[in-house]
Amino acid sequence: MKTAGETRSERKNRDIIEAATASFLSGGYDGTSMEEIATRAGVSKQTVYKHFSDKETLFGEVVLSTATQANDIVESVTTLLSESNFINGGLQQLARRLMAILMNDEILKLRRLIIANADRMPQLGRSWYEKGFERMMASMASCFQKLTSRGLLQTADPDLAASHFFGMLLWIPMNEAMFTGNSNRRSQAELERHADVTVEVFLVTYGVRSK
Amino acid sequence: MKTAGETRSERKNRDIIEAATASFLSGGYDGTSMEEIATRAGVSKQTVYKHFSDKETLFGEVVLSTATQANDIVESVTTLLSESNFINGGLQQLARRLMAILMNDEILKLRRLIIANADRMPQLGRSWYEKGFERMMASMASCFQKLTSRGLLQTADPDLAASHFFGMLLWIPMNEAMFTGNSNRRSQAELERHADVTVEVFLVTYGVRSK
Repeated sequence: MKTAGETRSERKNRDIIEAATASFLSGGYDGTSMEEIATRAGVSKQTVYKHFSDKETLFGEVVLSTATQANDIVESVTTLLSESNFINGGLQQLARRLMAILMNDEILKLRRLIIANADRMPQLGRSWYEKGFERMMASMASCFQKLTSRGLLQTADPDLAASHFFGMLLWIPMNEAMFTGNSNRRSQAELERHADVTVEVFLVTYGVRSK
Repeated sequence: MKTAGETRSERKNRDIIEAATASFLSGGYDGTSMEEIATRAGVSKQTVYKHFSDKETLFGEVVLSTATQANDIVESVTTLLSESNFINGGLQQLARRLMAILMNDEILKLRRLIIANADRMPQLGRSWYEKGFERMMASMASCFQKLTSRGLLQTADPDLAASHFFGMLLWIPMNEAMFTGNSNRRSQAELERHADVTVEVFLVTYGVRSK
């Protein structure tokens, strides 16, 4: 049946992307072959090529799929906050969640792979930047916009406020992790303390001033 | 004479580091050989090995040397600002200078190389992080501290303020450049506008409140 056939194809597609993600993250881009991905996915090399024309295309799908997953989580969290009344505690929860999502081992490794290949595959980096990084920033800006219109924040320029929020929150831990690798990273408790104090400072600028 | 001998050796050392920097930036770490560096420096391969025991050590020196150069500039700019009276315009000048120094083509490429090899050579990334990134943050914190003690800023925690300043300023342009490569980057004018508006927001939080 057509429907059953399509479903099987979609499942294979997902299996291949999952196998490719694991292979690229452990072996890097150059260190990973289509053959290895096929073996890990439990399909033939021909099947991999039937779904993805070449390694760069498949890597592009891995990047897009990871960006989409991370964004879906961020969007659900920002949507929740937009509708909540507890701006102060809520913003801290959001900052902690963002920290956890973006400082995740897989995301950090994938980020490094994209950066490593940015000059060679600029289109791929552009796709991550637009569909991951910028979309996340837009979710945040939309959340700030809603909170501002509800009188819970003061952000004249929600896009700028979103970029400042991410930058204040992540500049130190993200750079440290990018440069020094995934081992010996800061503890979850340290990251949460940094998130909490950053939200306090953010609210000095963008919170509603008492009259 | 010993002194003359030392000077020649020091000059060769510098020649090799300069040649190595150019080679690594154009060919990447794996794509660069000690032989190629020797040829570019105009010395024998043995001379290169006499100065640097292996490729990783030489790459480490390239990283350290670039970090030191960038820091020396940042330190001279922050020192100047610490002693100046024009906190508002001065901070904008500083932000623009930082942007120009850190968004320089060579620095961006070197950053990508370090990040690409972070899991394989964590010590090297740690060295860049401590002697480049953290030292620059410390210069900035020391500048904020002095301006605060002179009544021109209000930074209860100058280290945190420095991390927020860098993060607000660079989160967007640095990530965009990291992910999408060195071509098609934002114009100098755009970067300067972002620097100016970020300083305005920074001063809402950390500026001296009018009474």
